[in-house]
Amino acid sequence: MLVQFSIVPLGRGESIGGQVAKVLDLVDGSGLPYRLTAMGTIVEGEWDEVMALIGACHREALTGAPRALTTIIIDDRPGKADRITEKIRSVEKRLGRELRK
Amino acid sequence: MLVQFSIVPLGRGESIGGQVAKVLDLVDGSGLPYRLTAMGTIVEGEWDEVMALIGACHREALTGAPRALTTIIIDDRPGKADRITEKIRSVEKRLGRELRK
Amino acid sequence: MLVQFSIVPLGRGESIGGQVAKVLDLVDGSGLPYRLTAMGTIVEGEWDEVMALIGACHREALTGAPRALTTIIIDDRPGKADRITEKIRSVEKRLGRELRK
Amino acid sequence: MLVQFSIVPLGRGESIGGQVAKVLDLVDGSGLPYRLTAMGTIVEGEWDEVMALIGACHREALTGAPRALTTIIIDDRPGKADRITEKIRSVEKRLGRELRK
Repeated sequence: MLVQFSIVPLGRGESIGGQVAKVLDLVDGSGLPYRLTAMGTIVEGEWDEVMALIGACHREALTGAPRALTTIIIDDRPGKADRITEKIRSVEKRLGRELRK
Repeated sequence: MLVQFSIVPLGRGESIGGQVAKVLDLVDGSGLPYRLTAMGTIVEGEWDEVMALIGACHREALTGAPRALTTIIIDDRPGKADRITEKIRSVEKRLGRELRK
Repeated sequence: MLVQFSIVPLGRGESIGGQVAKVLDLVDGSGLPYRLTAMGTIVEGEWDEVMALIGACHREALTGAPRALTTIIIDDRPGKADRITEKIRSVEKRLGRELRK
Repeated sequence: MLVQFSIVPLGRGESIGGQVAKVLDLVDGSGLPYRLTAMGTIVEGEWDEVMALIGACHREALTGAPRALTTIIIDDRPGKADRITEKIRSVEKRLGRELRK
């Protein structure tokens, strides 16, 4: 399944780039395919491995803040693989042109 | 932690009330405090129990549909209890009036 | 259409109840039907009036904070009215029991 | 402000790639900077122009489906420009390496 998540620590100021870097380290260490976007992290994997990873990132955020807001959006289409690249490629094919990444 | 989730099965028509009823049965059986709203289900509990419950609901949706979109929003403020009722009560106190439920 | 929204000001501490009360005043003044839940505000209306309201709430949040995160979820089913109460009533009918509000 | 949105038409089958291509045409025609990700479209602009664009995409989705679910996530930090590229660049700087796009 394809999952986008973002974690916002509250009570630490408005700049959360340091937080994002720590989360990226955890995501990178998981071995799962991922992309960072300007609005969150997209990762592809099975329910248990993805949720364990997001749980670790969420707990990490709470080590430095009294409150965390975590948003998770799951797009699950069993039997379809490598959707992290295929979804965009399929739109590019319909459009007949490449999109800026 | 306080968690709102909603699950949308795709490929089964636009009416998903039957789906919502099945999910509610699973939520009710979990023993966790919950509320149904017009836009999703709110449940309060620890990460593992809440995620196990949402995972079961997500898999249930996929038994009858080829694709499911699940959105999870987590508001985690460790040390604060019974936030499923307290958050609204605290706003009512500030407003000086009761809100329509 | 049925719309849930929540606005999180960043850079002001972890407690945002005062913010929620101000937003509720704006929502109440709009005359649109609404419900406050533990995870956001649900409002029912047409695109232009709902978005003007959420825009006003978003700008209000930015008067006291350097950054705001606003999440809007829209469920639009043209031709269906009073869904703010009907969606829950229809699930209760299927379940054969009333849900706790 | 930076805005991610995704529009899911309900009642038309589970494959919504054609829908995504139509939305991309509208986004492209708006002249606003944007990125397509595997989970939605990210666009940068002022409230009125971004909401007019998303409203047009939402109405487009409803021409072919009886129901549409639209999710909008706004990250607004007045005074910061070109965040559609800067947010990722700033994380890469902290990490000391480039991320896969």
